[in-house]
Amino acid sequence: MREGEALEISRQVAGEVRKAITAIAREEAGMEVGMGKDGTPTKKVDRVAEDAALEVLRQYDVRIVSEESGVVGSGDIIVALDPVDGTFNATRGIPIYSVALCFSSGESLSNTFFGYVINLATGTEYWADEAAYRDGKRINVSKQDSLKCNAIVYYPHKEYGFKRMRIFGSAALEICFVADGSVDCFIDVRRGDGNGLLRVYDVAASLYIAEKAGAIITDDGGKSIWNKKFTMEERFKLVVANENLHSKLLEVL
Amino acid sequence: MREGEALEISRQVAGEVRKAITAIAREEAGMEVGMGKDGTPTKKVDRVAEDAALEVLRQYDVRIVSEESGVVGSGDIIVALDPVDGTFNATRGIPIYSVALCFSSGESLSNTFFGYVINLATGTEYWADEAAYRDGKRINVSKQDSLKCNAIVYYPHKEYGFKRMRIFGSAALEICFVADGSVDCFIDVRRGDGNGLLRVYDVAASLYIAEKAGAIITDDGGKSIWNKKFTMEERFKLVVANENLHSKLLEVL
Repeated sequence: MREGEALEISRQVAGEVRKAITAIAREEAGMEVGMGKDGTPTKKVDRVAEDAALEVLRQYDVRIVSEESGVVGSGDIIVALDPVDGTFNATRGIPIYSVALCFSSGESLSNTFFGYVINLATGTEYWADEAAYRDGKRINVSKQDSLKCNAIVYYPHKEYGFKRMRIFGSAALEICFVADGSVDCFIDVRRGDGNGLLRVYDVAASLYIAEKAGAIITDDGGKSIWNKKFTMEERFKLVVANENLHSKLLEVL
Repeated sequence: MREGEALEISRQVAGEVRKAITAIAREEAGMEVGMGKDGTPTKKVDRVAEDAALEVLRQYDVRIVSEESGVVGSGDIIVALDPVDGTFNATRGIPIYSVALCFSSGESLSNTFFGYVINLATGTEYWADEAAYRDGKRINVSKQDSLKCNAIVYYPHKEYGFKRMRIFGSAALEICFVADGSVDCFIDVRRGDGNGLLRVYDVAASLYIAEKAGAIITDDGGKSIWNKKFTMEERFKLVVANENLHSKLLEVL
């Protein structure tokens, strides 16, 4: 599989997910319809979106790692799928929720060759092959190297001195906001079993995009995340920023 | 002036603002073009939006209180105007920014008779006359009475135990998210000169909408905000939630 094919598949998935979730009412979207393989309740919008995404992906020889269904298929190419990242927003009509797809030729994040995130509410697309793009235009992280910056932080339980803090509720999109320089850094140091709360399908695609846009990505201890695996068990704490800001963030966290 | 006329004027303003800001490029939108009457730098998107809004409002016999120009006109009806609430998002293509208009027959917030907020990125409208509406449908605050709730908090420097925290960056819209039950509470206890950072044109419209949707609104000491004035000097700290949750919030803040 080539990057071009991955982009085409991603767009097919996004199109079908969008159609599927537009067809259900907002009140209905938030209903709980079971329990996901990730151990959290599945909302109707997640179920409907994942069904639509899997129907597309099953036509290809891929192994899917997804929020609700866990691991599906057995191809050599791994696809980490978050059918709706930002379910809370999606069920409330707040226009920050996305589909995220990450394509990898091996078990660890370092084998990634394509990442794709689309804001389902607006259609804005982010992707990366050898370089990173927003709606087809090359993007780069900001050059901000001061802690008086614009930060996304889960959660700011102490005063860091950032200029602005935001929490939009879709990690996949928020990391893309760092990739295109809209925001200067993304920090998630929530613990959850000691290892972080974020899952591989939440962040793998956008981390690849951010990296290709020039971001440095580690956990809060400065440890690389690229040896992490495409499994349901993997958890992430994250510090994502340009090189200069990143080293300053590690000092204050 | 009647509520119906206020709605019509608000929509005219929103339409013109939308046209005006769509016409400028995103890169250009964030350029600083002067200093506002509020004492902060004016971005091009703010200037262009305010010019468009004032051109509509000047046709009516109103006194306007607005972010960039300060007080304009001398009619008996006061209109508090925020031409772009969420400028940071607007200049980055993050779809959470709004126009807010509040109509009052007197000097204090208790004289308000109409409030209007529209998400410029999506067109979703919130307004209130005797009751509160989202896109024409009646809305109400949530019934959540536990602190394990979904909260918007500027800024959560301690652990409150909320289920989710969000910071979207447009107070006008965020208070509407409480009004329609999407989020359970809005808290802004930032100090800024000891009295809060929010201005009357940021919040007057959405506070009226939230009140008509059943919210209790006070500062962090439990003091009513309805005697506050439509002036450039007035500042707000806010706790907005349904009655039961509101009293619990005051205890932990």
